[in-house]
Amino acid sequence: MALANPSLGGRPFATPTLWAAIQYLMPGEDAPEHRHTQNAFRFVVEGQGVWTVVGGDPVPMRRGDFLPQAGWNWHAHHNATQEPMAWIDGLDIPFQYASESQFFEFGRNAVYDDERITPERSRSERLWAHPGLHPVAVARTDYGNPLLAYKWEYTNRALADQLTLEGEGFPATVEPGHAAVRYVNPATATDVLPTIRAEMHRLVRGHQTTPVRETGSSVYQVFDGSGSVTVGDQTWTVTRGDLFVVPSWHSFSARSEAGQTDSDSGALDLFRFSDAPIFEALHLDRTTAKGATS
Amino acid sequence: MALANPSLGGRPFATPTLWAAIQYLMPGEDAPEHRHTQNAFRFVVEGQGVWTVVGGDPVPMRRGDFLPQAGWNWHAHHNATQEPMAWIDGLDIPFQYASESQFFEFGRNAVYDDERITPERSRSERLWAHPGLHPVAVARTDYGNPLLAYKWEYTNRALADQLTLEGEGFPATVEPGHAAVRYVNPATATDVLPTIRAEMHRLVRGHQTTPVRETGSSVYQVFDGSGSVTVGDQTWTVTRGDLFVVPSWHSFSARSEAGQTDSDSGALDLFRFSDAPIFEALHLDRTTAKGATS
Amino acid sequence: MALANPSLGGRPFATPTLWAAIQYLMPGEDAPEHRHTQNAFRFVVEGQGVWTVVGGDPVPMRRGDFLPQAGWNWHAHHNATQEPMAWIDGLDIPFQYASESQFFEFGRNAVYDDERITPERSRSERLWAHPGLHPVAVARTDYGNPLLAYKWEYTNRALADQLTLEGEGFPATVEPGHAAVRYVNPATATDVLPTIRAEMHRLVRGHQTTPVRETGSSVYQVFDGSGSVTVGDQTWTVTRGDLFVVPSWHSFSARSEAGQTDSDSGALDLFRFSDAPIFEALHLDRTTAKGATS
Amino acid sequence: MALANPSLGGRPFATPTLWAAIQYLMPGEDAPEHRHTQNAFRFVVEGQGVWTVVGGDPVPMRRGDFLPQAGWNWHAHHNATQEPMAWIDGLDIPFQYASESQFFEFGRNAVYDDERITPERSRSERLWAHPGLHPVAVARTDYGNPLLAYKWEYTNRALADQLTLEGEGFPATVEPGHAAVRYVNPATATDVLPTIRAEMHRLVRGHQTTPVRETGSSVYQVFDGSGSVTVGDQTWTVTRGDLFVVPSWHSFSARSEAGQTDSDSGALDLFRFSDAPIFEALHLDRTTAKGATS
Repeated sequence: MALANPSLGGRPFATPTLWAAIQYLMPGEDAPEHRHTQNAFRFVVEGQGVWTVVGGDPVPMRRGDFLPQAGWNWHAHHNATQEPMAWIDGLDIPFQYASESQFFEFGRNAVYDDERITPERSRSERLWAHPGLHPVAVARTDYGNPLLAYKWEYTNRALADQLTLEGEGFPATVEPGHAAVRYVNPATATDVLPTIRAEMHRLVRGHQTTPVRETGSSVYQVFDGSGSVTVGDQTWTVTRGDLFVVPSWHSFSARSEAGQTDSDSGALDLFRFSDAPIFEALHLDRTTAKGATS
Repeated sequence: MALANPSLGGRPFATPTLWAAIQYLMPGEDAPEHRHTQNAFRFVVEGQGVWTVVGGDPVPMRRGDFLPQAGWNWHAHHNATQEPMAWIDGLDIPFQYASESQFFEFGRNAVYDDERITPERSRSERLWAHPGLHPVAVARTDYGNPLLAYKWEYTNRALADQLTLEGEGFPATVEPGHAAVRYVNPATATDVLPTIRAEMHRLVRGHQTTPVRETGSSVYQVFDGSGSVTVGDQTWTVTRGDLFVVPSWHSFSARSEAGQTDSDSGALDLFRFSDAPIFEALHLDRTTAKGATS
Repeated sequence: MALANPSLGGRPFATPTLWAAIQYLMPGEDAPEHRHTQNAFRFVVEGQGVWTVVGGDPVPMRRGDFLPQAGWNWHAHHNATQEPMAWIDGLDIPFQYASESQFFEFGRNAVYDDERITPERSRSERLWAHPGLHPVAVARTDYGNPLLAYKWEYTNRALADQLTLEGEGFPATVEPGHAAVRYVNPATATDVLPTIRAEMHRLVRGHQTTPVRETGSSVYQVFDGSGSVTVGDQTWTVTRGDLFVVPSWHSFSARSEAGQTDSDSGALDLFRFSDAPIFEALHLDRTTAKGATS
Repeated sequence: MALANPSLGGRPFATPTLWAAIQYLMPGEDAPEHRHTQNAFRFVVEGQGVWTVVGGDPVPMRRGDFLPQAGWNWHAHHNATQEPMAWIDGLDIPFQYASESQFFEFGRNAVYDDERITPERSRSERLWAHPGLHPVAVARTDYGNPLLAYKWEYTNRALADQLTLEGEGFPATVEPGHAAVRYVNPATATDVLPTIRAEMHRLVRGHQTTPVRETGSSVYQVFDGSGSVTVGDQTWTVTRGDLFVVPSWHSFSARSEAGQTDSDSGALDLFRFSDAPIFEALHLDRTTAKGATS
C-alpha cells in the first residue's frame, strides 16, 4: 500500500525522490530473496516476530525498530508469529527511477531452515551495535551499512537522555522540549543510507517547533502521541500511525497535543526520513534554520 | 610513575611517540584544572569512584573503562572514594615534544561543588553512547572526541559477542580465538584520538596470535589473565597489570596461558595503544599482516 | 534552442538529468546579470570575442574553450564582436527540476563599462590556471570552481601529448588511438561541477572505441572530424557540430572516419558531458569498462 | 652538505622534522638507482642539464625548477652537462628517523642508455602539467605525486600574475606586495608531499611581511634578491643562495631590500618548505596569522 502524492502525476511516489508504503505480512508468510540497487529501510509500526534475512542474517523486528538496507544486498523476510505485522517501507525508488539507475535480481527461491530462527539480536548487531567500538577484524566495509537494526530500546533511551540533560540545564536538544536523534552508519558516522536520512523526534506535551524551510522532501510518521502539523499554509491534526509529506522548501512546524489515550509520556514521537544526503552531497542543501548557512 | 624506555636516551618515554605512566590518586585528592595540546587517555586498572571533570562534565571511572581526552580540553580530577585508585595515563608527549607542538594552560583553581557528584553516566555518554545514533542538535563537532568514557561493560560484551559469533561459524574475529575491538570517535568513526589508536584484544585460553610486524610503536597492558609474549627475538611471561612495548617493525605474538588464579574466562585480555593514526595519516603505515598491502 | 529528448514527455530535456542547448548571441547583444542554483557551463562551438562576466570577472570565449559556472554565482554576457557566436549551454536543470532544488535571482540591470573590456585572460585564469600551483592567499574556496575558463590551447596540447606518449610506448591513453582529458576543479581535483562531468576525447583516424555501458546519461558534441557512433542497437554517422545523447546503461562506441574536409589531424574530437558525479556521490555508478568494479 | 641545526644534538638535521642539504653533481656523474620511504624533493639553485630518472622517466632540471618525489619511488640521477650543478635536497629524514618508519632499497646498478636522453619535458609533465586537466586513463593514482617537475617558468608567471592583479585592485596576494604560490599534487589538490609543504614567495622591493607565528618548522632559501629576516628576536641580512630556519612558534618576518646587483625585478624571492602537512593532518596546526583560527 504505497503513498501516492497527487501532485506527482499519478505515480505511487510520496515525494519526487522517496517512496513510502505500509506493508502487512500475514502469519507464516514468506517473501522470496531478492536484491535491488534502491536503498531501503523498514520502520516497524505495529507487531513483532517477523524477521528479515539480509545476506543470510536473520534480523528480528519489533515496534519502533529501524532496519536499513543499503542497495544491492540480498534480502528476504518471513513472519514467524501468529499475527499480522505492519511496517513502513521507505525507498529511493522515485529518485532511481528518474535517474535511470535501477537494477534488480532474484536470489534463492527458499529461505533456509537455519534462517528461520528468531534470534534476540542479529549477527550485525552483535558485531556493530556497541557504542564507540568497531570490530578490528571487519573494520573496513566496502559499501553499505553493516548495522541492520536500530532497536527502539536505544532510540527511546537516547531521546529520554536528551530531555533529562535539558532539564539539568545542559545543551542537548534541538530547542527546549524537542529532542532528536539521527540514525547513522556506525562504520562511517554518515547518514544511514547514501540517499536517505532517518531521524526520530520527540516533542514534549505542549511544545511547538520553530518553523523551518529546507530544500529536499521529507516523509513523517506519527509513531506515538498526537498533535497538529503545519506545512506551508495548511494545518491539520495528526495521531498515531498517520503519515504525511513535507515538500521541498515548504515551511514545517509540529505541535505536541497528546490526549488521554496517548502514551504515558504525553510526547509526540515523529519518525522522519528525507532525501537530505542527496542534497548535501551535491551542494544543493539550503535551510532557514537558525545558525544555518544558506 | 612513567615508563622509561632505556633505548630512548634517558627520557621517560615509552616509545618514540608515546608516553605511558601508572597514576595513583589518594582518597580525597584533587588535581587542578588544566589543558594541553597533547592527546591523552586514561585506562582504569584498579579501583573505582574517582572521576575526571572534562569541560565541566564529571566522568566516573571504574576498572576497564577507557577515557579519551582530545588535546586542548579543560580537565581536572578528584578521588571521591576512601581508597586509592590506579590507571594508565597514555599521551603523545614524545611526539609533540619532538615536533615542538606543545602548549599548556592552567584553568580554574578549584573544582566546583556541583562537579563533585558521582553520576552513573557522564553527560557525554548520555549524548553519545547510543549505538548508531547521533544527537541532531550537536551532530557537528568542531574538534575532539565527544564521548568521554567507554565503559568496560560494553567492551566486554563486544568481545564476548565476537567469540560467540565465531563459535557459530561466522566471521567476527581477527583469527580463531582472537577477538578485538577498536575504540572509535562515534562522531567521525575514526580513531579515538588524532594521534593514538586504542584497542582491547581477548585471546582465549591456549591461543597464540600469528606474528605480525608493523611500522609504528605500541604499548600493551595485560588487563586480565596471563601468558607469554614474543617481541622480535625475545619471549617472556606476563600477567595482570604488566606493561610492555612493541617497537616499530618488531615482530609481535602473544600466547594466552591463563592459570588457576586468573579470571573465570581463562582468557588473556590485552589493552593496546599505538601511534598508528600518525603513520596512516602520513602514508607511512606498513604491515606484514595477511591480506594487508604494504 | 534546447535539445528535447522525445522519450522525456515533451519537456526540453536532453536526458533525465541534463539540459543541452545551442545558444547564439548577436553582435553587441547583452544578457542581464543573474544567478541560479543550477550548475552550468558553456562550450564554444564557433566564433570568438564574446565574453561572460562571472562575479565581475570578464572571461573571453573562443572556439574550443570550456567555461564552467558553479551554481549561485552571478553572471552575465556580452558580445563585443561584429559577428554572431555559438556555444553549447549545459546545465543540470532536469535534475534540479525533478528534485525541487531550483532558485533564481536577477542581479544588476547593466554590465559596467569597465567589464566591457576583452582581456586576454580572465582574473580567474591568472590566479588558477598554473599547473600544480595554488595561490596561497586564496587557497581555500568556499564553494564552486574558481577557474572560469579552460582554454582550447591547453586541452588540445594535453590530448596531443597523450598520443605522443602512446607512440613512444608509454601508458597515457584510454586505449590505443583514444586520448581523453577530464576537466577538473584545480582547487579540489574533483569534477569541474558538483553534478556535471566534462571531458574531451580524441580518436585518431580509423580508431573504434570498445563498447562500454555505464549508469548515468551523457551528451556528446562532435567538436571536430567525423565518424559514426553506435548507441545500443543503433548506428549513425556524425560530423562537426552534431549533438547526440547516450542514455543510462546503453552501450556506446564511436568510430573515427574523418574525410577530406575534416581537420588536418583527421581525428574525431568528441566533447562529452555527463551526470557521473551524481551517480558516484550516491554510490550508484556501475560500468562494464575493463578493470572497473561494478 | 647537510645543514646541521646546533640545537638538535649534533645530528645533521635542519629542524626536528626536516633535512636540508646542498648537493653538487659533477659533469658526467651518475647516482645509482634506489628508493626510500622518505618523502623528498629537489629545488634547483644553479645550473641546468642534469636530470633525475624517476620510475624510468628522465626529468630535466633547470634553475628554479621544483622536483618532488613521494616516498618509495625508484630514482637515480645523471649529470649530462659539462658543468657542475647545485640543488637543495629536502627530505623528512628527521621525522622518519624519530618515528622509526624508514626503509631503503637499492635498485638497478646502471641507468639505461635510453634514459640518458635529456627531454624537454618529462613524461609526467606531459600527462599532468596541463592546468585543470586530468588524463582520464590514469585519473586514479595509488600513492604519490604524479607530477615530477614544476618548472620555474610557470611559478614565475603565477607570481607575476598575482602582483599584476593586485595592481589592478583585485584580491590575489597574501598582503600588498607579497605574492605566494603553493606547490600541490594536481591529482589530489593537496600538499605536494604527504609530510612536506613547499611554496615560493615574492616580496616586492621595500615590502616587509607582517610577523606570523606558526607551529611547525620551515626552511627558507633566498632564491633571488636580498633583504633581511627576523626570526624571534634576531634580525640578519640575507642574499641569494642563503638558507635559514624558522623554528616552531617563532615569529617570522622578511623584508625585501634588493640592491644594485640583484635581479631586474628587485624582488626578494623566497623558496620555503615546511612540515605543515604533518601538523594539519594531526590537528596540531596553530597560527597567529590574521583571520586564522588557533
